[in-house]
Order: sequence, then C-alpha cells, then structure tokens
Amino acid sequence: MSSTETEEKPPASTSPLPQFGASGRKIIYDKDGKPCRACNTLLDFQFATGKASTSKKTAAVTTPTTTTKPTLRHYAKEDPPDVGQLGKSSWTLLHSIAATYPEEPTTKQQRDMKSFLSLFAGFYPCWYCGEDFTRFLEKNEPATSSQDQLGKWLCEAHNDVNVKLGKPKFDCQFWKQRWKDGWDEE
Amino acid sequence: MSSTETEEKPPASTSPLPQFGASGRKIIYDKDGKPCRACNTLLDFQFATGKASTSKKTAAVTTPTTTTKPTLRHYAKEDPPDVGQLGKSSWTLLHSIAATYPEEPTTKQQRDMKSFLSLFAGFYPCWYCGEDFTRFLEKNEPATSSQDQLGKWLCEAHNDVNVKLGKPKFDCQFWKQRWKDGWDEE
Repeated sequence: MSSTETEEKPPASTSPLPQFGASGRKIIYDKDGKPCRACNTLLDFQFATGKASTSKKTAAVTTPTTTTKPTLRHYAKEDPPDVGQLGKSSWTLLHSIAATYPEEPTTKQQRDMKSFLSLFAGFYPCWYCGEDFTRFLEKNEPATSSQDQLGKWLCEAHNDVNVKLGKPKFDCQFWKQRWKDGWDEE
Repeated sequence: MSSTETEEKPPASTSPLPQFGASGRKIIYDKDGKPCRACNTLLDFQFATGKASTSKKTAAVTTPTTTTKPTLRHYAKEDPPDVGQLGKSSWTLLHSIAATYPEEPTTKQQRDMKSFLSLFAGFYPCWYCGEDFTRFLEKNEPATSSQDQLGKWLCEAHNDVNVKLGKPKFDCQFWKQRWKDGWDEE
C-alpha cells in the first residue's frame, strides 16, 4: 500500500493510511480504523486497502469528479423501475445492511431490525412481493442475534424468492464473500 | 390493447385485460384493477396498458423465462456493492416506496413511515451517509400526510445529497413522472 501513497495529489498524510482515494475523494474509514467498503467507491476502497495499483488510479482519473455548481437541468426521461430493478435494488440494500449489522447486537438493535424488516415488507412497492415477504417473516422469525445469523437468514429469504422465480439458489455459506468481504480476502 | 389479446398464448381471457404478459408471465394488477407498475417487468406493464406492440412481444420472447429446476451452482464472484451502487439502489427503493404510499394514509401508516425512515437511516450500510440522513430527518420532519407530500419530501432529501456530491438537482415537480407514472402518461 505504501508504494501508492507517494503519488497522492492531496496534502501528504503522515498517517500510514491514505486520506484520499484514486478518484480524488476523501477515503472514509470505519470507526475501527479500517477502510469502509460501503462508504467508498470500489476503486477507492481497493486503493485504501492496497489492492489497486497506480495504473488503475490513472484509469480512474479519466472518470472526472463533478465539481461544477449544481443547477436544475433537464433529466433523461427515465422510466420508474420495474419489478426486476426494484428487486435487485432491494436485495442489494438488505444484504448490505446485514453485512454491517453488529456482530453482537443489543436487544434494542435486534428489536429494531425486526421492526425494520416488518415495515419494509409492509411498504414494499410491489404489493404481492411485500405480502409474500410478510408471510415469510411470519413463518421464519428473523435471526437477529448476530451479523452472521442475520446474513444467513436473509440469504435464505432471498433463496425462497429465487426458487419461486425459477432462479438458482445461492450457497449461503458464501454470503459474506458476496455481500461483505469480497472474494479475494481471507 | 385488444388487438394484442388475440395473440396471447395462455388460455384466452374473457376479461378485457390480459392475464399474461409479453414475457409469458402472469400480469399482476393492483387492487383497483389497474396493472401494477412495481409488480411487473416494464415490458409486461407496457403490454398490459396497451403501450407495447406485438412486435415488441416477439422481441421479449428471445429473453426466455427460466423454467429449469433451481439448483445450487457457482456464481460469478461479484464484489459487494460500493457506495455508489448502494446509493442508487437505496434511492430506487425509497422513491418507489413513496410512489406507492397511500394518497390518504392513516395515522398508523404515517407513524410507521416515520419509523421506517428513522430505522433505515440507523441501519444504512454506509455509516456516514446514514448519520447524514439522520441529521436531515431531525431538521426536516418527513412529510407523511399524503403520497405527494412524501414524494416531494424525499425528492428534497435526495437533492440535499445531490448538492453535497456536486450533482445536479432534480426538479421535484416531476417526481411522479420519474418514480410513479412515467413520462408518457397524462
């Protein structure tokens, strides 16, 4: 990692961890001092963990960070999301929430997670999908006692839907690689 | 719409609304009898609302509906989502939730929506984004008294983030076209 640090453009840091990523944005760290995967772009995260080479850095610079003053303008007339986009977005959020849920949650955090999942099901925009998730919740109480338990429970919930849609099931022993740590970490 | 009905493969319906979409999947309707935008693929929704021609239908058939028995298999080793993917997914979900929130919510639904947004902020995987959203919630109480109020409030919340990221603001008078009705409807 140290070999890439000498090439940072922003003010040099005396810390062994970079302050700015390959994109020029500030690197966000978790409260335990590790780079936060969910808070940075993938490239900046890889840069902060020493997994991105300086050649990748150059590539990133070709994607400029917008610095123009924000103004109102005409948007591309994008359609509202359909059931597929909505499903993909929602699973991305839910699995990522499990990936940052505490390893040892308090009673309140466990209660809050159950409330969140229940409210999520009730407000889900596709009403029949939401009703289906509510039924799943009634039959399978969310396993909120640890991050790993919640991650696996959610993986099973997702597989329940995969089966209904005729999609392949995901092997839940890999939930952390897919949603938390990535595949190339120990 | 009726011109397309004669070409449906599944059992002919006596109803003026199709039972099956261009993809071969069952069309899901809202409880008021209208095709549910958040419950169908875009193509099936367009088919059900008479906006997709039969030529589009043929194109859809080239994307086969999976009917094989689901089995465990090796997945592409996809990385966990970064802050950008997470943001896009989450705004997609939240705006879509606003788009299906009741026009005249009960007191309980309003209370539930406030709880949902607060829990969402607390569990958001990017911790500094979540803290930022919590501060926004504290300064700007969610406008939950109607679907339109909530949709506009959420659009303002999104613009608050857009400004911080140097992105253009969205003109909130168009929130329903973007997240509920599409751009080609009255």
